[in-house]
Amino acid sequence: MKGNLLVAHGGGPTPVINASLQGVIQEARRYSEIDKVIGARFGIEGLLAEEFVDLGVQPEGFVQRLSFTPGSVLGSCRRKLTAEDYPVILDILRRHGIQYFLYNGGNDSMDTCSRIARLAGDEIRVIGIPKTIDNDLAVTDHCPGFGSAARYVAVSARELATEVASLPIHVVVMEVMGRNAGWLAASAMLAGSDGGRGPRMIHLPESPFSQEEFLTDVEALWSREKGFLIVASEGLKDTKGQSLADTGILDGFGHTIPGGVAQLLADTIIRELGIKCRAEKPGLLGRASLALQSPTDREEAYQVGARAVSAAVDGETGKMVSLRRVSTAPYRIDLELVALDRVANIEKKFPQEWINDRGNDIRENFKDYCEPLIGEPLPEFAGF
Amino acid sequence: MKGNLLVAHGGGPTPVINASLQGVIQEARRYSEIDKVIGARFGIEGLLAEEFVDLGVQPEGFVQRLSFTPGSVLGSCRRKLTAEDYPVILDILRRHGIQYFLYNGGNDSMDTCSRIARLAGDEIRVIGIPKTIDNDLAVTDHCPGFGSAARYVAVSARELATEVASLPIHVVVMEVMGRNAGWLAASAMLAGSDGGRGPRMIHLPESPFSQEEFLTDVEALWSREKGFLIVASEGLKDTKGQSLADTGILDGFGHTIPGGVAQLLADTIIRELGIKCRAEKPGLLGRASLALQSPTDREEAYQVGARAVSAAVDGETGKMVSLRRVSTAPYRIDLELVALDRVANIEKKFPQEWINDRGNDIRENFKDYCEPLIGEPLPEFAGF
Repeated sequence: MKGNLLVAHGGGPTPVINASLQGVIQEARRYSEIDKVIGARFGIEGLLAEEFVDLGVQPEGFVQRLSFTPGSVLGSCRRKLTAEDYPVILDILRRHGIQYFLYNGGNDSMDTCSRIARLAGDEIRVIGIPKTIDNDLAVTDHCPGFGSAARYVAVSARELATEVASLPIHVVVMEVMGRNAGWLAASAMLAGSDGGRGPRMIHLPESPFSQEEFLTDVEALWSREKGFLIVASEGLKDTKGQSLADTGILDGFGHTIPGGVAQLLADTIIRELGIKCRAEKPGLLGRASLALQSPTDREEAYQVGARAVSAAVDGETGKMVSLRRVSTAPYRIDLELVALDRVANIEKKFPQEWINDRGNDIRENFKDYCEPLIGEPLPEFAGF
Repeated sequence: MKGNLLVAHGGGPTPVINASLQGVIQEARRYSEIDKVIGARFGIEGLLAEEFVDLGVQPEGFVQRLSFTPGSVLGSCRRKLTAEDYPVILDILRRHGIQYFLYNGGNDSMDTCSRIARLAGDEIRVIGIPKTIDNDLAVTDHCPGFGSAARYVAVSARELATEVASLPIHVVVMEVMGRNAGWLAASAMLAGSDGGRGPRMIHLPESPFSQEEFLTDVEALWSREKGFLIVASEGLKDTKGQSLADTGILDGFGHTIPGGVAQLLADTIIRELGIKCRAEKPGLLGRASLALQSPTDREEAYQVGARAVSAAVDGETGKMVSLRRVSTAPYRIDLELVALDRVANIEKKFPQEWINDRGNDIRENFKDYCEPLIGEPLPEFAGF
C-alpha cells in the first residue's frame, strides 16, 4: 500500500509534541511505501481547509530543531467535528493520495481519530499518537508531554518553596494546569522528596475542596512556619462538585475553561486569616518551557511518533500507540498498540490511593510512578 | 584592621544573590585581615536578633552550590529600621567583632546600609552589594539579578508567543514583575528580535495606560492574527498615576504590593471585545528559575560580591560596588565604587526614549543595552 502520509495535531500542545513529529518524519524516510509526508496546519481545521505543508522539503535544521520547539509547529485546534464533516475529511484524504493518517492528540482527538478510522475502513490506515500534559489518557502508563510538564511543576515547586522560605513574609499559592485530573499538580510532591523543599499542601480536583478545612490547615502551618508554598490544581472542585474558579468560557468541545483558582485561594487566605498571600500562575508556560523538558519524555515522544509510522506501514489501523511500563527500577517501557475505542473520550483520574486521608497532600508511593518520567534528578540547593 | 566579616541580604532575592555570597566567601579567604565570615539570617532582622551563622564551617558542597541556589540562602527581610535600631545594630556589630559589614540589597537596603556606614564612621567598614531583578538602582549600568530575570522574561515570552500562535484561539497576557520600573517587562522585546516570535504589545509602568487605546490595539491585532501575546508590567498605572491592580497590601517599607494586572486586562478583553483571553503570571518564578539564569549575570554577581570584600579590606566604606559599561560590542564592564548616598532610595525608571510613541512597545535600540546581560542567545525554534 503506497501513498502519502498525513500528520495532524489536535488540542493543546505539549513541550514534546514536535518531538513526536520529528519521529514521524524521520521514521517515514525508512519506508518506500511512503511517498510524501504532509502536515495539516492547525489540526482538523487545516485538514478541512486543505491547508497542507510538505514536511519533506523544509529548510536545513527544521527537523533537527523540532524536538526543542514549543507549541505545535504544525498548529493545532479545538474543533469538535459534526457528522457531516467526516465524509468531507475522507474525500480530502482520498484526493490528496493519503494512505496513512496519523493524529496526535488527547482523549478528544482520539475520538475524532477513531471515527475517521471507522469510516476509512481498509482504505486508509489511521493511527493515534498520544499526547497530553494532563496525563489523563486511558490504558497508556503515561502520556508523552506529561513527563516534561511534571518536571516543570516539580522544579518550579522546589524553586518557589525555597524562594518563599527565604523571605518568609507570605504564603504562596501556585496554580497548576489540569482541568479534571490532578496528575500534574501531584507531581509537585517530587519537590519535597530527597530532602528538598516542597509544597506544604497539594490540592487536586479529585479531592473535594473544603474551604473550612483549608483555612484550618493554612492557619496551623503558618503558626509553625512563615513562608510556605501551596500547590492547587486549576480544576479544584468544592464538595458539591462545582469548580471553585471558572472563566465562564467554553472551549471548542464545550468544556469549561478553569482559571484563577490560586488567586481565589490567596484572596481567601488574606480575607479570612489576615495572612499575606501571593498567587502565581505560570499557566501555559508549564507546557511551553523547553529548559525544563524531560529528556526521557522527549525520547518517548519521538518513539511513539516513529512507532505510529511503522504500525501504519505494517497494516495496523484504528489503534493508538501506548506506553507499557515493564519495570520502574530500572525504568523501562515498551510500546504497544491499543484500540482507539479503549482510549477515546475517557479521562483517567488521579488514583485515590495516592491521595492522603485529609485530601491535601500526595502519598510517598506516587514518587515511584512519577520520578522516572521527569528524566533527570531535581536540582539540589545549598541550605542550612 | 583585623576582624570578622558580616554579610546580610535585604529585600527580594534574585536568581544570583547567592552567587554574590559565594564571591564574598571565596574572596574573604584571601585576606589575613578577615577572621570569620559570618552571615546574618533573614537580613537586618536576624542581625538585630543576633541570629548568625558561621559561613566558614559549612558542609562539603555548600559554597559550590550557592551560585545555583534560588532564593536567599541566608534569608532576607523587608524591615524598615527606626532611628532606635541603628545604635543597637552598631552595638551588636561591636560585640561580635565585626570589622567589615556587607549588605546585599536594592535601593531601600542601600539606604539602611548608608545610615549604618555613617554611624559606624571609621570603626567598621560598610560596603553595599547591589541586587535587584527590577534593575532600578541608580548609577550602576545594571543590577546583578536583572540579567537572569530578563532572560527568564525573554525566553518565556518567546515560548508563550510561539505556543499561543500554534493554537490560535485566544490572546494571552503575561504579567511581569516590576513595581514602578518597566525594565523587566521591556526585556520581553528580545523575544521578537532576530526573527523570533515575541509579544505584540509591551506595557510598562512608565507609560500611562489608557484602556480605550489598549482595546483599540487589541481589536486591530486580533483582526489580523488570532493567538498573540501581550506583556504587561505588574505595576501598570492609569493616566492619573493610579495602579491598575493592587492587592491593597503594603510591604515593610509602606510600598503597595501590586498584583493581578494580567487577569484584569484579560477580563477587560473578554468583557469589552468578546475575545477569549488568558492571563499568565509566573510571578516569583521569574526570580527563582535557575534553568534560565544568565551566565553573565551569575559571573557579575560573583564579582561584585568579591569586590565588596577587597574594597572593605582596602579601607573603603560607605560605598556600593557598581557596574560601569566600558563597551557593548564586545560587551565589557568594569567595577567601581560609588557613594551609597548616590544610590539610596532612588528608583531608576525605564527611559522614555526606549518606549514607542504609542506607549505600547519597546524600541529596537533597547536591544543593544539588554542583550549582553541575558548571557546566551535565545533559543531558535522550528517554524514555517
